[in-house]
Amino acid sequence: MIISVLQDAFRPGALEENFKKIKAAYDKAVEKKADMLVVPSEALCGFEPRGLVDYSGYSDKVAQMQKKLVRKTVPDTALVFDTPYAIDGSFSPAIIVAYDGCVQNSIPHLPAEDFPDCVVEYAGRNILFSFFSGDSAVGVLSLPELMETVDLAVFLDARCFLADVEEKRCEMLDTLAHTVPALVYAGQAGGQETEILVGASAIYIQGNAGLQLPYFKPAQGFLDMDSRQKQGMPLMYPESEEGRTGVLHDALVCGIADYFKQSGVKKAVLGLSGGIDSSVVLPLAVEALGRANVLGLLMPSRFSSRHSVEDAVALAENLQVYYETIPIEPLYETFLRQLEPVFKNSGFGLAEENLQARIRGNLLMATANKTGGIVLNTTNKSEAVCGYGTLYGDLCGGIAVLGDLYKSQVYALARYINRKKEIIPGNCITKAPSAELRPGQKDSDSLPDYDLIEKIIRAHLEQKRDEKELIRAGFDKNAVKQVLSLFYKNEYKRRQAPPALRVSSTALCSDFDFPLFS
Amino acid sequence: MIISVLQDAFRPGALEENFKKIKAAYDKAVEKKADMLVVPSEALCGFEPRGLVDYSGYSDKVAQMQKKLVRKTVPDTALVFDTPYAIDGSFSPAIIVAYDGCVQNSIPHLPAEDFPDCVVEYAGRNILFSFFSGDSAVGVLSLPELMETVDLAVFLDARCFLADVEEKRCEMLDTLAHTVPALVYAGQAGGQETEILVGASAIYIQGNAGLQLPYFKPAQGFLDMDSRQKQGMPLMYPESEEGRTGVLHDALVCGIADYFKQSGVKKAVLGLSGGIDSSVVLPLAVEALGRANVLGLLMPSRFSSRHSVEDAVALAENLQVYYETIPIEPLYETFLRQLEPVFKNSGFGLAEENLQARIRGNLLMATANKTGGIVLNTTNKSEAVCGYGTLYGDLCGGIAVLGDLYKSQVYALARYINRKKEIIPGNCITKAPSAELRPGQKDSDSLPDYDLIEKIIRAHLEQKRDEKELIRAGFDKNAVKQVLSLFYKNEYKRRQAPPALRVSSTALCSDFDFPLFS
Repeated sequence: MIISVLQDAFRPGALEENFKKIKAAYDKAVEKKADMLVVPSEALCGFEPRGLVDYSGYSDKVAQMQKKLVRKTVPDTALVFDTPYAIDGSFSPAIIVAYDGCVQNSIPHLPAEDFPDCVVEYAGRNILFSFFSGDSAVGVLSLPELMETVDLAVFLDARCFLADVEEKRCEMLDTLAHTVPALVYAGQAGGQETEILVGASAIYIQGNAGLQLPYFKPAQGFLDMDSRQKQGMPLMYPESEEGRTGVLHDALVCGIADYFKQSGVKKAVLGLSGGIDSSVVLPLAVEALGRANVLGLLMPSRFSSRHSVEDAVALAENLQVYYETIPIEPLYETFLRQLEPVFKNSGFGLAEENLQARIRGNLLMATANKTGGIVLNTTNKSEAVCGYGTLYGDLCGGIAVLGDLYKSQVYALARYINRKKEIIPGNCITKAPSAELRPGQKDSDSLPDYDLIEKIIRAHLEQKRDEKELIRAGFDKNAVKQVLSLFYKNEYKRRQAPPALRVSSTALCSDFDFPLFS
Repeated sequence: MIISVLQDAFRPGALEENFKKIKAAYDKAVEKKADMLVVPSEALCGFEPRGLVDYSGYSDKVAQMQKKLVRKTVPDTALVFDTPYAIDGSFSPAIIVAYDGCVQNSIPHLPAEDFPDCVVEYAGRNILFSFFSGDSAVGVLSLPELMETVDLAVFLDARCFLADVEEKRCEMLDTLAHTVPALVYAGQAGGQETEILVGASAIYIQGNAGLQLPYFKPAQGFLDMDSRQKQGMPLMYPESEEGRTGVLHDALVCGIADYFKQSGVKKAVLGLSGGIDSSVVLPLAVEALGRANVLGLLMPSRFSSRHSVEDAVALAENLQVYYETIPIEPLYETFLRQLEPVFKNSGFGLAEENLQARIRGNLLMATANKTGGIVLNTTNKSEAVCGYGTLYGDLCGGIAVLGDLYKSQVYALARYINRKKEIIPGNCITKAPSAELRPGQKDSDSLPDYDLIEKIIRAHLEQKRDEKELIRAGFDKNAVKQVLSLFYKNEYKRRQAPPALRVSSTALCSDFDFPLFS
């Protein structure tokens, strides 16, 4: 028995394209005499159609594409895909097994106790078809008697990469793969809006990966189940810290590339401050878009240290990226002069700091507008937690590349990028973080240590520990109070921040929904 | 039997304050020998606690406040409130009837068929306690036999004002009020983040309102059910268009006032362009915050017509609001000079237009930062639909006052504000809308007629008509294609726009969740 697995990203707004991708993969499967092509979950209808499902233009089209796909099937190659609609157009998500021009089986999304109904005979084997959600997987594991009757289990999936959960996903798959003689896992792969779909589709025989497709990239694989040749390939998610940072790196590169592809935009603009964040975003952008499509802006002020300009220049030159230097001083002075009636003689303060950041935001956006590009935002999650950033200033942009990464993860990425040679100047990695909006400013002047912020907020968001519990767990009382107070009172900033590429199960403003005023 | 009803806005982050408000109202009820105080839904725990419910610091505190409240009750005055937690701290929303220091009844949120379990005997009467959701209300109506045994029905509620649904809410209440001898409706009142809770709590006897509390404002009312004195008061939601615009006006004033109260901020800053939107926001802000707390900025450019400056000045002077004039020309010129290496000789275009809007955004934000204020955003829903606005420019601000109002509603508000005397210069209302970002520009140069935009998008969002259906319904094909294309491709702008005061059931980005790329 030859099985083929397809992985790709399927968009809800691109039904024709989705149809064509599935059809092309099916044609290849037929050509290679595969007995079955397994397509990821939400392939035909697109990943997360959201509000579109309420429109008949969308649902009718899905139903129409679905019929067309089924009609194209030949007798000896089953096409396995899912759809949110029954053939009659009514909403009723199911896995479809089609061959010989007909829907042969339609397997609805069932609770665990109904799993026996998911088992279908095809090509002389008992095959279980199911979605790969935590519940379904656990459901299957709770039915060992059923599993004994199954020759093959097929799981359809579409899930985004979550660095903190990826190990668990692999473990769950590994456990399942050991309960059945063979297992097929087909997951969507690639960037969709801010999410990066895992991919890593696989076929296991007797618990060993016989076929393993890559993370994040479109691919189609084939495995002859009866040949034992390819067996024993290792699971792809690396054990080492550096290896895992590499997967995270690839996820972000894919996220940027596909965000731009979906936007229909080629060029990216970003500010280069010589700080760690922009110094990590630049190489990611270059890998995703090509160096010719990335434009750096250096926007030094009276408060910029000489080394930050030098570091930014060195970085741009290491990557051979075109950059322009636009000093903000003349703009800053003109603003101060024009604002004289409002500012009067109030002295330097937050307004003057934000002003500089917003002048830079305006320069970046003007450059993006003029070149038809999108501004890449460089804020990280530790800053977002504390509201350390200026709305419409450094918080501008189409997509926040590092918005779901703590500062420590940004440093790990920097080291990973530099693993073979120094691309990011060492100074960017070793110097103390600074917004450089006032003389000699350091982030640590107004924030606790970034490692402490991360530990506190992880315990708060991941383990749901509140103030009292955090202090009881040994965290410094003042730091806890400061971080939580900053976190809650800056919800308003996060609501207007650019969407961030998601790489964790605790993405701000999407996994949490806190009151604006609490 | 004397019944008291309390209405107010209760915040999830202010449990002590919520407790005190309920306690104070209960003390007054006891003093006035009321048999029962009915408190709106989610009063103790606060309206929409969202993510807070996952934290034991929050849930423990709610449970503790709940016990404390119950212990304070005396034998002859029942306290009726709801809570998301059972006394043991487990999550189990219920209506509590407490007196004599104990929970006497705990009535869970039941499906319609279990309504008989919601009927409790108190003070010699059969009283039905329920939440006022569409389902529950319909559920009650479907049980006429039950209703015949009920002497009094008590509905707890907390819902935001939706101009397009308010008539239905009143009708539903009126219908219910005619099915039972007496009915109590207690709803939260006041602004909560971007939502404005209706209030309008009432007591009906034989279908007639015997007590009617105001829209949006905190209040406590009393009614002696056995005295027929006050009966026959009319329902408060006006029949006339002007009357309804008045309610909408009051909702927005309440929304602004409470948003600032919750932010702990007194001062508002807004740009005055002489256009209809800012000309409507200014009087609303003055009514909400007082004229001394509102600062107007006139920021004319080389493209501003003389009348737009004159109209803005006249408006500010009519309202006696302090304003400053900061011409953007020197800033615009300095930006163009600094951007020369990027702009080169590309000619005037979108980048130059956005630049002007973002200079204004920067001036507004700088003024807000310096004066400790919040920028009021003046975008309307028709513009938001079409993405007609500049991110970080005219789309800056803490709260979008008109963000959920179509242009036609903004004009209606203008006429309402001018109903007694001309506050908004007539010219602001009659002239053609223009962004004044290029010579002689009119909104109609790049957009279909605003009335047509509204009709198309209402049919699309409210009746879920897609492109094909809209054209079939007789809308101009090109206009439909243009509006829908603008709507979908500008989702990214709305994701970063300031939160808008909600006044409809079709608020953008909160009632809809469309893909970023479709």
